[in-house]
Amino acid sequence: MRLEELTQGIGRLDEAAMQTARGRQDQLTKPRGSLGRLEEISIQVAGITGDPTPRLFNKVVLVMAGDHGVVEEGVSAYPADVTAQMVLNFLRGGAAINALARQAGARVTVVDMGVASDLAPAAGLVIRKIGGGTRNLARGPAMSRAQAVDSILAGAEVAGAEIENGADILATGDMGIGNTTAAAAIGAALTGRPAEELAGRGTGVDEAGLKRKISAIRRGLELNRPEAGDGLDVLSKVGGFEIGGLAGVILAAAAHRKPVIIDGFISTAAAMIAVTLAPAARDYLIAAHVSAEGGHRLMLEWLRLRPLLDLEMRLGEGTGAVLAMQLVDAACRALTDMATFEEAGVSGKDGKEQAES
Amino acid sequence: MRLEELTQGIGRLDEAAMQTARGRQDQLTKPRGSLGRLEEISIQVAGITGDPTPRLFNKVVLVMAGDHGVVEEGVSAYPADVTAQMVLNFLRGGAAINALARQAGARVTVVDMGVASDLAPAAGLVIRKIGGGTRNLARGPAMSRAQAVDSILAGAEVAGAEIENGADILATGDMGIGNTTAAAAIGAALTGRPAEELAGRGTGVDEAGLKRKISAIRRGLELNRPEAGDGLDVLSKVGGFEIGGLAGVILAAAAHRKPVIIDGFISTAAAMIAVTLAPAARDYLIAAHVSAEGGHRLMLEWLRLRPLLDLEMRLGEGTGAVLAMQLVDAACRALTDMATFEEAGVSGKDGKEQAES
Repeated sequence: MRLEELTQGIGRLDEAAMQTARGRQDQLTKPRGSLGRLEEISIQVAGITGDPTPRLFNKVVLVMAGDHGVVEEGVSAYPADVTAQMVLNFLRGGAAINALARQAGARVTVVDMGVASDLAPAAGLVIRKIGGGTRNLARGPAMSRAQAVDSILAGAEVAGAEIENGADILATGDMGIGNTTAAAAIGAALTGRPAEELAGRGTGVDEAGLKRKISAIRRGLELNRPEAGDGLDVLSKVGGFEIGGLAGVILAAAAHRKPVIIDGFISTAAAMIAVTLAPAARDYLIAAHVSAEGGHRLMLEWLRLRPLLDLEMRLGEGTGAVLAMQLVDAACRALTDMATFEEAGVSGKDGKEQAES
Repeated sequence: MRLEELTQGIGRLDEAAMQTARGRQDQLTKPRGSLGRLEEISIQVAGITGDPTPRLFNKVVLVMAGDHGVVEEGVSAYPADVTAQMVLNFLRGGAAINALARQAGARVTVVDMGVASDLAPAAGLVIRKIGGGTRNLARGPAMSRAQAVDSILAGAEVAGAEIENGADILATGDMGIGNTTAAAAIGAALTGRPAEELAGRGTGVDEAGLKRKISAIRRGLELNRPEAGDGLDVLSKVGGFEIGGLAGVILAAAAHRKPVIIDGFISTAAAMIAVTLAPAARDYLIAAHVSAEGGHRLMLEWLRLRPLLDLEMRLGEGTGAVLAMQLVDAACRALTDMATFEEAGVSGKDGKEQAES
């Protein structure tokens, strides 16, 4: 698969399915519009899937992991080893994403996109290593342009395989010590806002660490001069392998007409790369939540996405996305499973039989 | 059961369980505090249940229905018959609450607290009719003080039976054409704010209807002069049978140390009555969402509760509450099921073995 095939394979939402879904919402036994954003979301999913009564049985969260050379700048509160340790924790089912995905009825697939150490093959782990971690973005490009393409295509292939396997909806998740630095750099490059507005505490770095982080992002942007109109240039210069993989997941979901729920700060940076490469992909995105990481709001605004949740979370892994998956499922169930006024024999507004048109 | 026994049976949260839960949160494999409000909620549930690793297997939403004499003032967009018609829709599984409760894995119990027509016995329906609808609150008290007590005790008994049956968590829901008028009147009486700040469009009344609604609430408050310090007085003068029932559900949940998720505008009015009768009940409440009904925010502020969701919903029935139930379940699963740094062999912050204390 070539990247152009992937991006050019993304069509527009199905207006007819959306129109039918909207008409159905107005016939269901509730005051019009009273399910608020659930109605919007259900209509979006109708447009994405082309099905005016969509059902989301098969749920998958793709947690992509990678290491980051920029950790040598002292930008994270945790040592780089934690990336691989947390991957093992995911595989054993002990992490937050496992607990939340079990609750949501979602399968967790972990993808090694570029963890520094070699991970043993295991059930639930897909190894698509582009490299053993990126280079330090503060001192040069994080990866080559060819690696950027490879990371996107690898992510797209993993997502494509899940969809072949029956996935109705995908959620994105990430793990990578140092990756809030890369994501903030992507956010700064694409929004044009200064590093200090995008960078936050990440996993909990202290004041001095935050200063080092902002400095690393500034140096990375000044040195590498990523081209805002060129998603591959931004990804290769200041991105990460798991971020490229997630951009690929998003593009593949859109190309296969499946809704994709984007998690927090890292996933949103990946979505910005995906939308830079293929603007039509935006309509397939559902923003799960606004992270406590300050710059996230700016990135969501750039994407023109309204998050469903605001729970002051800042964990990543796809934790916000699987929570939102429940809301998206609920939205589709209301659209698809509720009775109409006519079916239920319920009087419409102002006593008219059924909803007025 | 007497009302005093119920209200005096409500204890304080279990501080020791909360302390243990808080300590555990800090040992779990995630940056401290990174699950945001999910952490808070899990600690609250630990305090409610007395269990530092709570599990919420058995979920119930209690949808209480009643009719309102104030509909003769032209305050609703829908005819009063819709209350009974919607109860039948709930029993057949065609309403929004059914679709959303199925998604959440929650059982729906419908309670006739005072529907105007006689409903045939049916599976899933509990008949605890206090009367065939309230009297018109704009022209006198909605019910007697004895009926107010009876409605609360009936709701408490229904909730108590569900808890005996194994319910780990309750959600409140309502159905009653005209009940946003009663709820707004309760809100105005207890917050001391004017009727026009509490009253909204309800199911979608037009501008003239909204004026009639505000006028009915004003007349009801001027004529009946409910005493803000006396929850029974407020309930009897401007409340509703289903609102009294929901206040009883809340008091019973608190007395049995079970979390109770309050839905939107109507349920929040019921919670205000419950907290007026027993201030300790407040700590057992979880506010699901802020409704699109304008006055809801004022009522949540009066209760000092922060809603989990803001999805512009305004349907009632417990629809917001069952969505939030998923978040509460997820919060408890993270607390209870996640591995600690030590268990997972993950390095702690700044490279220390395990989380520093």
